[in-house]
Formats: sequence, structure tokens, C-alpha cells
Amino acid sequence: MSTKRSTYSIVGKSRPKLDAPLKSTGRSLFTDDIVLPGMLHGKIVRSPIAHGRIVNIDTSRAERLQGVKAVITHRDTGGVMVGPDQMLLCDDTVNYIGDEVAAVAAVDEETAAEAAELIQVEYEPLPAILTLQEASAPDAPILHTYCEDNFADERTMVYGDPDKAFAESEYVRSDEFISNPTHNCFAELHVALADYSLPGKLSMWTPSQTAILFQKNLAQNLGLSESNVRMCCLNTGGAFSGRTDVKPHHYIAALLSRKAARPVKIMCSVDEEFIVCRAGGNNIYRFKTGFMKDGTLKVIEADMLHDCGAYVETQFIVLLLTGIMLQLLYKVEAMRYQGKLVYTNNIPYYFHHGGGMTPEQFALGQHLDLVARDLGIDPVDLQLKNAVEKGYTTLSGTHYASCGLKECIKKAARKAGWKKKYGKLPPYRGIGIGCGVMSSGGKGMFVHDTSAAFIKIAEDGKASLFTGLPDMGQGSHTTMAIIAAEALGITTEDITVVSGDTDIDPFDVGSFSQRGTFTTGNAVKAACLDAKKQLAKTAALKLGVKPSALVFKQRSVYPKGAPEQAMAFEDIVFDTLHSKEGRFVMGRGFYNSPSDKASLAYSFGTQIAEVEVDPETGFVKLLRMTVAHDVGRAINPLAVEGQLDGQAFSGAGQILFEECLMDSGQILNPSRLDYKLPRPFELFEIEHIIVETNDPFGPFGAKEVAEGPLVTTAQTIANAVSNAIGYPIKEIPVTPERILEALKQKQKQH
Amino acid sequence: MSTKRSTYSIVGKSRPKLDAPLKSTGRSLFTDDIVLPGMLHGKIVRSPIAHGRIVNIDTSRAERLQGVKAVITHRDTGGVMVGPDQMLLCDDTVNYIGDEVAAVAAVDEETAAEAAELIQVEYEPLPAILTLQEASAPDAPILHTYCEDNFADERTMVYGDPDKAFAESEYVRSDEFISNPTHNCFAELHVALADYSLPGKLSMWTPSQTAILFQKNLAQNLGLSESNVRMCCLNTGGAFSGRTDVKPHHYIAALLSRKAARPVKIMCSVDEEFIVCRAGGNNIYRFKTGFMKDGTLKVIEADMLHDCGAYVETQFIVLLLTGIMLQLLYKVEAMRYQGKLVYTNNIPYYFHHGGGMTPEQFALGQHLDLVARDLGIDPVDLQLKNAVEKGYTTLSGTHYASCGLKECIKKAARKAGWKKKYGKLPPYRGIGIGCGVMSSGGKGMFVHDTSAAFIKIAEDGKASLFTGLPDMGQGSHTTMAIIAAEALGITTEDITVVSGDTDIDPFDVGSFSQRGTFTTGNAVKAACLDAKKQLAKTAALKLGVKPSALVFKQRSVYPKGAPEQAMAFEDIVFDTLHSKEGRFVMGRGFYNSPSDKASLAYSFGTQIAEVEVDPETGFVKLLRMTVAHDVGRAINPLAVEGQLDGQAFSGAGQILFEECLMDSGQILNPSRLDYKLPRPFELFEIEHIIVETNDPFGPFGAKEVAEGPLVTTAQTIANAVSNAIGYPIKEIPVTPERILEALKQKQKQH
Repeated sequence: MSTKRSTYSIVGKSRPKLDAPLKSTGRSLFTDDIVLPGMLHGKIVRSPIAHGRIVNIDTSRAERLQGVKAVITHRDTGGVMVGPDQMLLCDDTVNYIGDEVAAVAAVDEETAAEAAELIQVEYEPLPAILTLQEASAPDAPILHTYCEDNFADERTMVYGDPDKAFAESEYVRSDEFISNPTHNCFAELHVALADYSLPGKLSMWTPSQTAILFQKNLAQNLGLSESNVRMCCLNTGGAFSGRTDVKPHHYIAALLSRKAARPVKIMCSVDEEFIVCRAGGNNIYRFKTGFMKDGTLKVIEADMLHDCGAYVETQFIVLLLTGIMLQLLYKVEAMRYQGKLVYTNNIPYYFHHGGGMTPEQFALGQHLDLVARDLGIDPVDLQLKNAVEKGYTTLSGTHYASCGLKECIKKAARKAGWKKKYGKLPPYRGIGIGCGVMSSGGKGMFVHDTSAAFIKIAEDGKASLFTGLPDMGQGSHTTMAIIAAEALGITTEDITVVSGDTDIDPFDVGSFSQRGTFTTGNAVKAACLDAKKQLAKTAALKLGVKPSALVFKQRSVYPKGAPEQAMAFEDIVFDTLHSKEGRFVMGRGFYNSPSDKASLAYSFGTQIAEVEVDPETGFVKLLRMTVAHDVGRAINPLAVEGQLDGQAFSGAGQILFEECLMDSGQILNPSRLDYKLPRPFELFEIEHIIVETNDPFGPFGAKEVAEGPLVTTAQTIANAVSNAIGYPIKEIPVTPERILEALKQKQKQH
Repeated sequence: MSTKRSTYSIVGKSRPKLDAPLKSTGRSLFTDDIVLPGMLHGKIVRSPIAHGRIVNIDTSRAERLQGVKAVITHRDTGGVMVGPDQMLLCDDTVNYIGDEVAAVAAVDEETAAEAAELIQVEYEPLPAILTLQEASAPDAPILHTYCEDNFADERTMVYGDPDKAFAESEYVRSDEFISNPTHNCFAELHVALADYSLPGKLSMWTPSQTAILFQKNLAQNLGLSESNVRMCCLNTGGAFSGRTDVKPHHYIAALLSRKAARPVKIMCSVDEEFIVCRAGGNNIYRFKTGFMKDGTLKVIEADMLHDCGAYVETQFIVLLLTGIMLQLLYKVEAMRYQGKLVYTNNIPYYFHHGGGMTPEQFALGQHLDLVARDLGIDPVDLQLKNAVEKGYTTLSGTHYASCGLKECIKKAARKAGWKKKYGKLPPYRGIGIGCGVMSSGGKGMFVHDTSAAFIKIAEDGKASLFTGLPDMGQGSHTTMAIIAAEALGITTEDITVVSGDTDIDPFDVGSFSQRGTFTTGNAVKAACLDAKKQLAKTAALKLGVKPSALVFKQRSVYPKGAPEQAMAFEDIVFDTLHSKEGRFVMGRGFYNSPSDKASLAYSFGTQIAEVEVDPETGFVKLLRMTVAHDVGRAINPLAVEGQLDGQAFSGAGQILFEECLMDSGQILNPSRLDYKLPRPFELFEIEHIIVETNDPFGPFGAKEVAEGPLVTTAQTIANAVSNAIGYPIKEIPVTPERILEALKQKQKQH
């Protein structure tokens, strides 16, 4: 569509991640690799009970232990509260199993662990509230006194006239769905290394999706100016929305360092990781929709209860995102949404990979699948009938300048052989379709969605590209290098990406909300065009043409139509530096999402799954998935395919396997052995369909390909399973136990 | 003088070095603090003889030692020569005691040392040539076959008609002077940490004055593109011209790392340090001058022999600098200079702190002092009569846009009470005067003297200043921060200096030739003015005035004459970032020395020393020094005074104490105990006179205050000692033994 891929030299050609050699040989530096002179090791003392009063904390034995350099309790925090409900270290109340009560720093991990055990905390237990039902009951005990009920946040959105739309609907259906707690399971455990040994400047090494937001929060709560918190975010071993917030261990490392006047590293153990992580919670999703008999969707109503756990932190985002996303995928007349965050004495939750939308979209997708069944309409036709398209403006005012949803649906259905299979498969075989939409950044959400970038070009024509966008493993630095190489007419091998230190990085709010390729990519492109302008000035003089008549391509510069006059790119750089002014080539660029409402560009996707269910064991075998995604432009097709594979695999885990088993506020399976992740032998065949719609606002036409595919996978597989067993899926993950239970219920009905 | 100091808010106000808290609490990171995962330790096997053939190298026992990961000899270097005369590791010949023959990398230092001892090298000794006389004799054996005699380099400079000038002179005098080898004695020993574990990219951590030149040399000799060598130059514990060149241990660390596929650190021992350092050599300086009887200098002729030692490396610089500097201080009609670098089997020399000019200037200064005595002219008057001044153009075409030499002479003489003391002191008390000149950078010398700088300003109004100029302890980063703060109207506390990584730093050839304050300072100022322009655009809109009518001062911005309308600097930054374009403030600047001949700006200095000599022991007691220096503008008066003190102290060491005692090519005193440095109890009183001439090309009028004061000190003290004992000083250092010998000679004459 419009600009052909062949216009570009670098964009659209598959290439491995630039850091693949380093990663695959174990040479990439992660936070735990950093050893500072005089560094201490920290250990946190956590509450063993879900709710209670602290009667006494005795740190004297720990303080006397040889090798202990600092012990801190709430008396050392200056009473700092992080958020409206959370003491930096608990003073009189503990609110969940794992709540931070005290911490020690010692010369080695063993001594720190021993000292932590020597700290004696006396508790007076209080009744723990552990379910949404208990917590939201009108007479429930209030968990946080600042809040008059247990609703930490509530949000309502209404567009159009839902009551009228329901009244006009020929068919109305309601369903309730439940999601259970999940965990992100990063490859790299949570770790923080703080050097706050001199007052006035805190340096912190930690994996993070957003150094800028970490910096802001740490500075605010420690009473520093933002720039006096230096965040060093090296390689990050996975993040999945779990590294957007400062966690208590970050503050604790800083305070221990301040007290001991030495750097302090806190490396979480695997079971601690399950407590610190803040992933998906136990939520309830109620959907009600109104349709015309021909399958035209008129109205969506959604009512959600999210288990907040003990502290609210930044969970307001979950309510915002799950609400706003509801009216983006289908043409709809009206929408009503109500979301509530409910305090309990569980671990503070947040959301698993997918911005809270994976379980929500599962619920909506399964609900629509049930509607299709009721109305006797092929689910593919139902999707096509209601799908948004290019030029459409949503209820919330979002305009789609590009949209490949219908193309995705059609191509996926064709490739998966939908028509030949749907309704014609043998017993316990099923096929399902799901559709999804995802924003590409956008400041309307909750941040100042701005990126800056900077590029310097050395004498040999090689460049350093500065960005504050971290790469958590998804290859975003490679994407940025491709954008820069294309813009400058050089190759990705010529580019070193510099990132991960707030003293150095240009402003960038970080890697979340699928904003990297779109927002940072636009800034990177602008910086490179600025550098190119400087080079064009030199080249134009040398080649005797106007700067606008120059072509920069494959490390050479020539007048349009005269490649035989080409000068080497590096010679132009050299000549610019060695000119009379000694001009060193440095380009700068900015991008600010111009829309105040939401994102400028949305990706769309369709997936089709085929499954086989074993009725004896309840085990689901994923046979095949077809994954179509409108990415605007595939900057690096290999990385796009990697994202499609990775997100589909992760989505399969969320819908089929992953669950934190909770008992009285305690996680029963806090280990990589007992928490069931999809394993390599559970891999399935994936067909990729990359749809390119050349978005007018994206860099070289690109949009997100981050969490977009993920939120579609769960519903797709659920719909296929439901199709296989002929019974609705109402609770996830769809474990063998739940499938056997569904089959039992189905039998009862007959 | 023109712009008054009070015009500035920050410039001209004394402030401590920004890194003082870090340095004084041991928190600054030096290369040896860096520990990389899997890092090995390297050890070099060196020649124990000054000249010989290698018959055999047996590494088999070392290779079999547990913990050894790599052993290299010349067979692993690919025959790379560093320079015209030097194999990276010796193949068939060793040329000095310490020459690198083999190296090992092992899991710890002890294992590496043990393995190094297990390497058996069989030598066949050859006659060693160790003196300038032997080496320059017409029938001397040739040390390097590529060179038809033992002169590694020769340079002649002639300006005007020296023969005519001598013929017209009413008085002609010749003298010969000798300097002995010295050592730089950095606080931080030589160290290199190389990570070349993956092909195609070498990362090297090492203290250096010039990351760019290290990068160029390493890349060239290892067959890499420049940018594929990443130099990380952290804090540097002293340099004194001794860290401008890549040394063999740098290459060796890289090759060991390549072979072992792991990072390798080589930390030199103290005695190795004396071999690796390349400091001052054993040189001969012959001066002949022609004068009129009234003291008018007409012509200078100089003939110098420099002991090159075993390898030439970059010693061509010495011949260039010592030549060009001869016609910069005095108005002279003609000049003739011949310099030769002579190969011997001594350690490869270079020069001690001062660009080779400390002994040369001692020789010229003492020579002129003897002339004054002969002509019966007060040395102060002789200096004043011949001193260059503002507006003067030298024989080599250097024009002085600012020059405070006469002011320095007059002020120093007045402050030191010269008139009351000269010729009127009791026996064995002496007073001496010396004058000096020094360039402030300048590309005419030997490098592309360009600096670039870059500044980014964060949301809270604090800035990161990017520079490739290293700070070796002299406080140049603080100077850059002051220049930036003044240019932006903020404070030095608001500025973080980012430097020391070629992947990040803007182009800057480094810290040598006294170029930092002048050249980099100009680039920094330009970068800040560029950032200010971006801010002024926002502020002008907010305040309703033209950008040119704005004042940036003390963290606020206001219309000229209306400080009551001031907006906070950080609010302007915030508004710029949060504007519609989301413009992040990033300023870039360049400075290229426009003169092709030499420097644009020269500093001038005058010193007066008073000494007392003990005729029994020959011991010199320095009573007092008056140090006047034309710095153009004192950016940070405290740092200027620190430089004046430090250089005078270092100069006193060079003239009175410091000497590498050589025997048959072997250093006899390679330790900090046996090599005599001036100690704290040898400190003397120093009176500072800061002369400000507001150079039109310098940043805020500033010129160098680096090695300028140093090269004046040695001659000044020598002249005072000569004045005290009534006998010429012909050899340095002026140790008690040499003074007693001079007194003996003096007695013989009478």
C-alpha cells in the first residue's frame, strides 16, 4: 500500500538483534554484574502475616552481628509514604504477606540473611480480607483509613446513550468472567543497586522500562531534585509491564546506602520475586452487549472489579486502560464502563503483560463468541460486520488514519482454512477467532508522551545513537538503529545505541504503552534527518548541487540520478569535521504525540487458533495459530515475527497455564518449578501474516507490534477451547481441572 | 582590562572542584575499580638485557599451568609493528631492559605472575649503546635497520638570517646544558582493561589524556575501524604528558583478551611503571645568542640532542615543540634550531610534564642569566627589554592578541622586592628570575585541534554537559561546568559533566598542549549559547519581549532591566519540553582553532625564586617563590592558584630532585622511596599574581594555565641557585652533589 517496501534500503529487511552476539555469549551486562568498591548486600525483613499490628521491632541482635553495616526500620524513613496508603517501611500495620518491615545491609549476602533473621518483630494479627466479595461488602472492615470504603479507585466512562441503545437492541446478552492471579516471570529477577553514599546524589542501577518515571518517583519521595537521581538501567531481562514502577526494594536499597554510606545491592530471591513483582490479580469482568439480529453491535456495557491487593500504587492505569480500550475495536453506538479497584490483604497487584487487557479481552472475546453462537452467525462474519476501518472515528474521538483490521480478519481466515473447519471439526477439536486493537503510545493516557533523540557521527562515518528508550529484550534498540540507518543512508552495523543512564540519555518516558517504535522512532528519525542536513551542506559544496538534490544511500552520497559521482559517507563526515568551522556532526530530534486524547496510531490484529482437548485429562493441545497483525510497516520483519511468536506464546501461557495459587494471602507456588509457564515442548506452529498499512504518522509508516498481538491470543485460544468442548469458558487460566469441571457441567445440562 | 570580572556571576569566583567530595571520600571510580564478569589478569614478560637476540621462547610450561587462559608471543601479533621500529612483542631482537617479549592471562594475578616466570626466553646478548655520544658517533653500530644512522628524527627551523644577526651582534655567548632522565610518578599506576572477547569491537578502560588518539592508534594497529575501539577513560590519577600514547601494555591486554575470549586487566607494578612511563630523557642543549651591548637580543641558535631510547614512538613532538617555542618569548631578529632524536638502548623516552620544555627553558633561562651577568645588566631589565608584547608578531608568524608578559615581570619584581634583593643578599642566598610562554592549544602543532561539546537540560533545569576532554585531576571538568553555568545563567551545582567514553563523548582530541580551557572551553560556551537560544524562544513568548532582550542569570530569566518579571530557569525548560513540539533542550557547539600555524592565544609568566644554599651539604632551601601568570581570565581563581602551586612544586622537583639513576640501561631507583619527589615538608611559600588580559579569542577571555607556569619554574630556581653560589648551573637536577661539585670548580677557578 502506498510507499513500497523496496523504496527502503534497510527498513523492511530482516536482521538479527544488534546485541545478539553479546547476549548469546553471556557478555551483556545486567545489574547484578555491577560490583562497586565497598558494595554491601541488603536483605529485607517481610511480614509473615496478611494483616496485623506491629507491637515491637527489636533490631539490636542484628546490629551487633559482625559485618552488618546498617539496619533500617520505619524510624529511618522519615515517615515517607509512597502513595496514599503505603509506608516506605511498615510502622504500625502490615497489610500483606511480604510487606516490608525492616532491612539490613552487610558485607555479604550470607551475613545480611543471618542479620535479617535476627530481627525480631512481634505482631498482633488482625482479620485478613482476601476476596473481592468480602472487601466490597457494604459492611466490610475498612483496610486503609484514608479511604472511606475499600475502593482504592473507581472510574466510569459513558459514550453515547447506552440505555437507548439497549432499548433498541434486538438481542442482549450478559456474562461474567473471572481471572486468577498471575506472575510475570522475568528472566532477570528484581534487583537494585543504590549508591547514595554522599548526600545530594543517588545513583541507582536497576532494570527498568522507564528510567525517567523511576527518577521522578525516587526524587519526589527522597526529597531530591529529579536530576540528582541518576538511573542506570542496563540490559533488562524481560519486563512485561512489571518494571514501570519504583518498588519498595528500590527505596530500601537507597536508604540502606545512605545510612551505611556505601553502595548497597538488593537481589531478590525467587520467592521474593513473586511478592515484589505486582502482576495480574483476581478480577471479575461483567459484560453486557446489545445487538441487532443481523449481528450489528450497538452497545457495550462492562463492569469490572479488580483486586488491588494491599496497596494501590499506580493501578489507576489498569482502570483507565481497560475502560478506554473497550470502544476501539468495533463500531458501536454507545458504551458504558465502570471499573473498581478493591483493597484486600493480598499482594499488591498491577497487571500482567498486556496492560490488564489480556483477561479483559479474553472476556469480551469469549462473550462475543457466545453471542455469535446464539445469533447463529459465523464468528468471522460477526467480526467483519462490526470491525472498525480506516477513516473511522471512535466514540472517544480517536480517528484511524490507518487500519488493517478487516484485512487481518480476511487473511487470517483464509490462511487458517476457517470456512472448511468452523463447525466441521471432529469432537474435541475446536477453532476460534479473536481480534484486538492496541495504541502506539499516546500522551492522552497518563504520561507526557515525548521522546528526544540525539546522534553523533564519528570521523569514520559510524554513529552513536542516544535514546532514553530501554530495550528489555524485544529488540527496540535494533529497531531504532534500523530507523537511523535508513534515515542516514548507512547500515545498522555503523550504529551503536547508547542508552540506560539518565545523566546521558535524552528525554524519553520509556518503553511501555507500545510507544517505542512509534514515538521514539519518530524522534530518532528526526535526529538523523537533522544530522543529514549538516552533512548535505558539506556534500552539496563538494558535489556542486543543491542539498535537496542529494541521495544518501548505502554509505554513499550522490546527486540524484548520478550514483557514479558518489562520495563515501565517511568522507563527507570527515570533511565536515575538518572544515574551517570544525563542525562535528551531531543531530537532535524530538517527537511529541500531538493528540491530547489518545494515541495517533493503532495496530490491529486477528488470530485464529486450532486446539484439541483431551476429554479424559482436560489437557489442551494447541495445534496451530494464525497470527495476522497490522504493524503499519515492518521495520524489521524478523523482529516482528519474533514479537508475534513471543506474544502468542506468552498469551497461550496466560490463558492455559499460568496461575498464582493463593491460600489465605500466601502464594503456594512461588517458584519456576511450581508456577506453570509454557515450556519449549508446548510450542505450537504459528503462521505469520504481516499486514502493512503505512501509517502516515509512524516512522516509515510503522505502528506498534508489542502487546497488540498478546491481548488477542488469550481470547482466541479460549474461543477455540470453548468451540472444542461446546461449553463457555468463564474462568482463566483454562486449566485441565477447569476444563474437566466444564465438561461435567455440560453433561449435567444435557 | 576591558570586561570587568564583576560582569560575570560564576566566572571569576573561586569554587572547589566538583568531584572533590567523591575524590576525598574514595568514591571516584578508577580503571582498577572496574571488575568485569569473567575478567582475567595479565602479566608481561620483559627483557632482562638492554640489547640482544632472542634465540628461543618456550611457553609450554606456562601454558600447562592451571588457571592460565592465554599466552602470547610475537607469533600472536600478526607481525604488527607499532611505529617504524617496534614489534608489538619482540620477535628476534630486544632493545632495552623491559622490552616486551611475551604475556600471559590467568584467572588471578598470582597465577599470571607464576606463569610469566615459567616462560623461558633464551637470549644472545648484543653490545648495548647507552649514551648520546656513542650513539651519534659516525661509526656507531646501527640500532634499527630501517634507519641509516641512529637519528630517529631530525628537525631544523630557521627564521630570519641568523648568520647576519650574529655578525651584527656586539656580544655572543654559547653554553651547553645537560638534563638527566626523569619519571612522571603518577598517583595512578599504568593499567589497561581490555574486552576484545568478540571480534569487531574492542572496549578498553584505561587512564588517558586523549581517548580519540588512543582510539585511532589502537584501531589502526589492530585493523579495526576507529569507532569499533571504544575507549573508556574514567578518572585519571595524573598524566603529565605521560598518557598521550598507547603503550605496549594496551595492545597486549587487547591481544590477550582476544585470545582468551575474556576481558583482561593488566595492572603495572611500581617498578614496571618506571619502564612503561616514557618520561624525560638524557638530553644535551647547546645555546648560542647574539646581543647588542645594551641588552637587545638579536638572535638565538639552539642545537639539541634528545636521547630517544629504544623506540621513537611519538617523540617527533619533542623536536617540534622545543624548536617552535624558542622564538615566542623574546623579540628576536633571527633564530636557528636543530634538534635530533638519538636511538640508544635505554628505555624509550618521551618528555616529562611540560612538553620537553622544562629542561630546554632551564637551559635558555640560565644562559640568559649568564648573559645578563656578562653584560652587567639587571636580569629583570634584560627580560623587560626583550619581552614580547600585545600586537607583536613572532618570526614564525604568531600574532599576540593579548600579552601580559611585561605586566608579569613588573608585578613579580615589585612583589618579590627584586630591587632590594638582587646583588644585595648575604652569601649563599640567591634570587633569580625566569620568564615563560605557552600556547593554549592550537592545531598547528600536530593535531586537528577541534573540540565539540553538547549539553542537555533536564526538566528540573539541571544539565548534563558532554565533553571528550578528560580531567586528569587538574579540575578541567569544573572549569567547563563554570563556563557552561555562566553561559546559561545557572550554577555549577546544576551541571553534571559527562565524559570518558568514546561511544558517548563528542569529538575532542583531549587534554594536552594546554588546550582544554581554551579550545574545549570555547566549544562548551558555544553549546550552551545554542541551548540558551532554544530557551530564549520560549521565554520571549512568555515574557512578551524579543529573545535578544532577555537576561539569563542566577537560575532565572527576565527582560533586561526588569528582574521583577523573572521566570525560573527550570520553568522555561519545563515549558519548552511541554510545548506543542515537545522540544527537549539540547545544545551543540564546536570550536576549531582557526590558525593553521600555531595557537591563537599564548599565556605568559614570570617567576622569581629566593633560595639559600648550604655550602657544607649542597642542600638548597627554597625560601619563597613569586609566580605571576597571564591567564587571560581566571575562570576559577582557586583552580588557577592550585595550578600555579602545583606547577611550581612540580618544577621545583624537576630542577632540584628528580632523576632516574641509570646504569647500563637499568634504572637503579624504580620506586617511590628511591626516586626523589618533593615532599610536603619541602613545600615553600608561593605568592600568586594572576594577570588578566581578557584574550579576545578565549572563552570569557581565558587562556591556558596548565604547563605554562611549570616551564618557568625550573629556570627560575636554577637562576636563583646560580646567583647564590656564584657559578653557572650546567646540569639538572641541581642535586646537592652537583652543587658541591660546582662550588669545588668555582674554588679551583679562583
